[in-house]
Amino acid sequence: MSFTKLDDLGRKLEALEHAQSMLGVDEAVQMPSGGGDKRAEAMSMLAGMYHEMAAAPEIAGWIAEARNEDLSDTQKVALNEFERSYINLTCLSSDFVRRQVSARVRSEQLWRTLRPAGNWKEFLPAFEGIVNLAREESQLRADVLKLSPYDALIEQYDPGSRVVDIATVFTELKTFLKTFIPKALEAQAKRRAKNPPKPFNAPFSIEKQKALGEAMMKAIGFDFTHGRLDVSHHPFCGGVPSDVRMTTRYTTSEFLSSLMGILHETGHGLYEQGLPKEWAHWPMGKARGMAAHESQSLFVEMQVARNPAFWKWAMPVLREHLGDAAIAGWSLEDILAHVHRIERGLIRVDADEATYPLHVILRFEIEQQLIGGNLGAKDVPEIWDARMKEYLGLSTIDNPKDGPMQDVHWPSGAFGYFPSYTLGAMMAAQQWAAVERENSNVSDDIRKGNFSGINDWRRKNIWSKASTLSTPELMRAATGETLQAKYFTAHLKRRYLA
Amino acid sequence: MSFTKLDDLGRKLEALEHAQSMLGVDEAVQMPSGGGDKRAEAMSMLAGMYHEMAAAPEIAGWIAEARNEDLSDTQKVALNEFERSYINLTCLSSDFVRRQVSARVRSEQLWRTLRPAGNWKEFLPAFEGIVNLAREESQLRADVLKLSPYDALIEQYDPGSRVVDIATVFTELKTFLKTFIPKALEAQAKRRAKNPPKPFNAPFSIEKQKALGEAMMKAIGFDFTHGRLDVSHHPFCGGVPSDVRMTTRYTTSEFLSSLMGILHETGHGLYEQGLPKEWAHWPMGKARGMAAHESQSLFVEMQVARNPAFWKWAMPVLREHLGDAAIAGWSLEDILAHVHRIERGLIRVDADEATYPLHVILRFEIEQQLIGGNLGAKDVPEIWDARMKEYLGLSTIDNPKDGPMQDVHWPSGAFGYFPSYTLGAMMAAQQWAAVERENSNVSDDIRKGNFSGINDWRRKNIWSKASTLSTPELMRAATGETLQAKYFTAHLKRRYLA
Repeated sequence: MSFTKLDDLGRKLEALEHAQSMLGVDEAVQMPSGGGDKRAEAMSMLAGMYHEMAAAPEIAGWIAEARNEDLSDTQKVALNEFERSYINLTCLSSDFVRRQVSARVRSEQLWRTLRPAGNWKEFLPAFEGIVNLAREESQLRADVLKLSPYDALIEQYDPGSRVVDIATVFTELKTFLKTFIPKALEAQAKRRAKNPPKPFNAPFSIEKQKALGEAMMKAIGFDFTHGRLDVSHHPFCGGVPSDVRMTTRYTTSEFLSSLMGILHETGHGLYEQGLPKEWAHWPMGKARGMAAHESQSLFVEMQVARNPAFWKWAMPVLREHLGDAAIAGWSLEDILAHVHRIERGLIRVDADEATYPLHVILRFEIEQQLIGGNLGAKDVPEIWDARMKEYLGLSTIDNPKDGPMQDVHWPSGAFGYFPSYTLGAMMAAQQWAAVERENSNVSDDIRKGNFSGINDWRRKNIWSKASTLSTPELMRAATGETLQAKYFTAHLKRRYLA
Repeated sequence: MSFTKLDDLGRKLEALEHAQSMLGVDEAVQMPSGGGDKRAEAMSMLAGMYHEMAAAPEIAGWIAEARNEDLSDTQKVALNEFERSYINLTCLSSDFVRRQVSARVRSEQLWRTLRPAGNWKEFLPAFEGIVNLAREESQLRADVLKLSPYDALIEQYDPGSRVVDIATVFTELKTFLKTFIPKALEAQAKRRAKNPPKPFNAPFSIEKQKALGEAMMKAIGFDFTHGRLDVSHHPFCGGVPSDVRMTTRYTTSEFLSSLMGILHETGHGLYEQGLPKEWAHWPMGKARGMAAHESQSLFVEMQVARNPAFWKWAMPVLREHLGDAAIAGWSLEDILAHVHRIERGLIRVDADEATYPLHVILRFEIEQQLIGGNLGAKDVPEIWDARMKEYLGLSTIDNPKDGPMQDVHWPSGAFGYFPSYTLGAMMAAQQWAAVERENSNVSDDIRKGNFSGINDWRRKNIWSKASTLSTPELMRAATGETLQAKYFTAHLKRRYLA
């Protein structure tokens, strides 16, 4: 049976993915510096073997033959995802991929060298090459997928989401934020004038912070028999669903950035741990995409862990692990002053949930024009500066380092990825609203440190669905409607203007 | 060019070996328990891919064609090792390997269950199956390799060593040890009567022991930019030459067993780190075999780190890391009383360097008869008991747990491996004698913590040779003669009877 051939292939590919994923984790967490060259060589070899196996020409025949086989409904959906995955993997010729990988590696290396000095001029030629290749890629994919070029790129990260729909919710959100942010900042200033934020009683030992983080991960539902928490320079959630490897980094001067980072990654980890085990070797068994994944991390970080109800439960836990002196005499408002702090800034990764979407929308708008061909790579600094001034009142024209050179995405050729961050934030708010509709006691549960209800909802509506649905279908099935901006804007108003 | 095809294949196999090795390390060091099933699945898939690639029929043609190509002398030797490796990999049919793997897995699992109670009777049927398969394997290999059946098994672990040569040095050693051990024990008793061994001033913190171990590894030449030390239940030296992963385990009641274990594994690690980088993806670039590897670990552990000169240097280092109180008032003799402790015992892995060879010789003699077919699996406990009584004056007839059931090797089907341990110990002594001939100040160097001379000798004579020579050739090139028992017996006399 051809479906059996696909199933067998899936097991081989899963083993290679397992190896690649774990070698990546080890590289970030354990590997000594001198191991890097051989590790890179091994990983690139494994990636080559993976591609050779996953994109083999005979697979097209297996897929076509399997269509005529007597398959269960589940197998039929699995077959669709086998096909989607195969088509996306084979859109580009090996020759094109080689050219692109080589250009991306050089551009990213150059970016690492030039970014500290903000040397846009010397970076520009490499960036122009990357943009040209991205345009070429988008056209190659668009032809096969019958999508617009930018849609074809977004499809890689967020299957089923389309520019026209994203633009609709982003426009509504942008309009909202332009008036909301000044109001929220004003409200924050008033609160601060009345009750100035208390400084952290540093230092906080790394050992205690780790125990605190692990205690909260456990309470929120992370299964430590199928995962662990380590330290790496750039925090991530990696590994495989049966063995989720999360990382964080600690500073002793405060505990909140590491803790919130851990809680964010825990959201990713719960999604992975909650995927159906029996489909683990099929494309259908994987998490749906970047936006869906980000919806799960932001659900935990923004909807749950920055919720005032959460801190009613968390403050005693925090005192238990860090000691009473850590937040001696702090009220709920004192901790929320840190947890809900908002500020206009230049850097996306440092942004809070209110200003973050404007960083993303700016990039989404520029990407659309870059891929569409009506903006040249060389004109990016000007448009970036103009939008930053318009959206956040900040100029980056003399500071490309903190402007278009701040992110690794474009230098490494990842166009179409950025929208996922804000789509995920909006999806999380919409999911939270759905949870609240089903269970009006959800805040009470959280106040008591009981997270099983929200996890049950997510297991049923998100995790167990894996990649059986497109992102918009997943949202409709889970919440009754496709993505709407109103849940996220309502969430922001409730949190920052109340 | 066909040699280029072999070279390319080597790089792919190296990547798979890299993945398998690191996944194995991660499993022992980092993996949470629940990750085990998928890890086993992934590793077995990767092993299957490796075998499929490495044993592909077309490789025979590449090797034959490469013989007629214009190769450098190095490439010619590399080609020989490609061939040796390919022949050994393809001696057995896939069907036979499948039967064997399945029997081994079941037998090893059964052994783990039955060993604690020493239930030989229930284990016997599985063991008989394993012995029969080992006989079959040895015959299949013997036919291809034109060796005797037991030689064909030894060839897997120690290329070039032959039973007739091993038997010669083992017989000499056995004869020596029968009279030596009573004398050495008597000498030890006299020393102890005069100066009773001081107890350890426990507890010793794990953190301090780790720092001590790492300081000694570094002093001895371990390159921490290409390796690291971790903790696992069973200590090992794994990873790849560019990234050597060593492990140990600690007890707080004494520091010596962990430290000596670390120094032993450091010997393995130095060998791996010293292999020529440019051959890393060729069979010729690998360490020569188990006996050669053990010679390197035992060189560091027995010749260097149990040398009185070593402790002249090491005692202050020990005090620096564990604190003065750790060995307060201890003289060199006090530490040597622990480092040179010998005792007749039932368990091979707990044995000292003087009694250990008798454990190995016993197994070598039994294996010869088992594989030769003149001993039945069911008769092993009797012959084991008889030999233990003869060699060490201990009976195991009522205690199969600490008799033939003590090791994992036979239950997992590894026949021909045991001799490597004692061959390695003898090789190490012979190498040490060669070092001393070239540099009469070697003990002075060690007394000063200067290990560069002995490492230079080993880099030149052992590490850089990788698998360009067979084990006997390697010894002859390094020391001027093939393996002799006299260096090891002289070493024992000097250490234990002086």
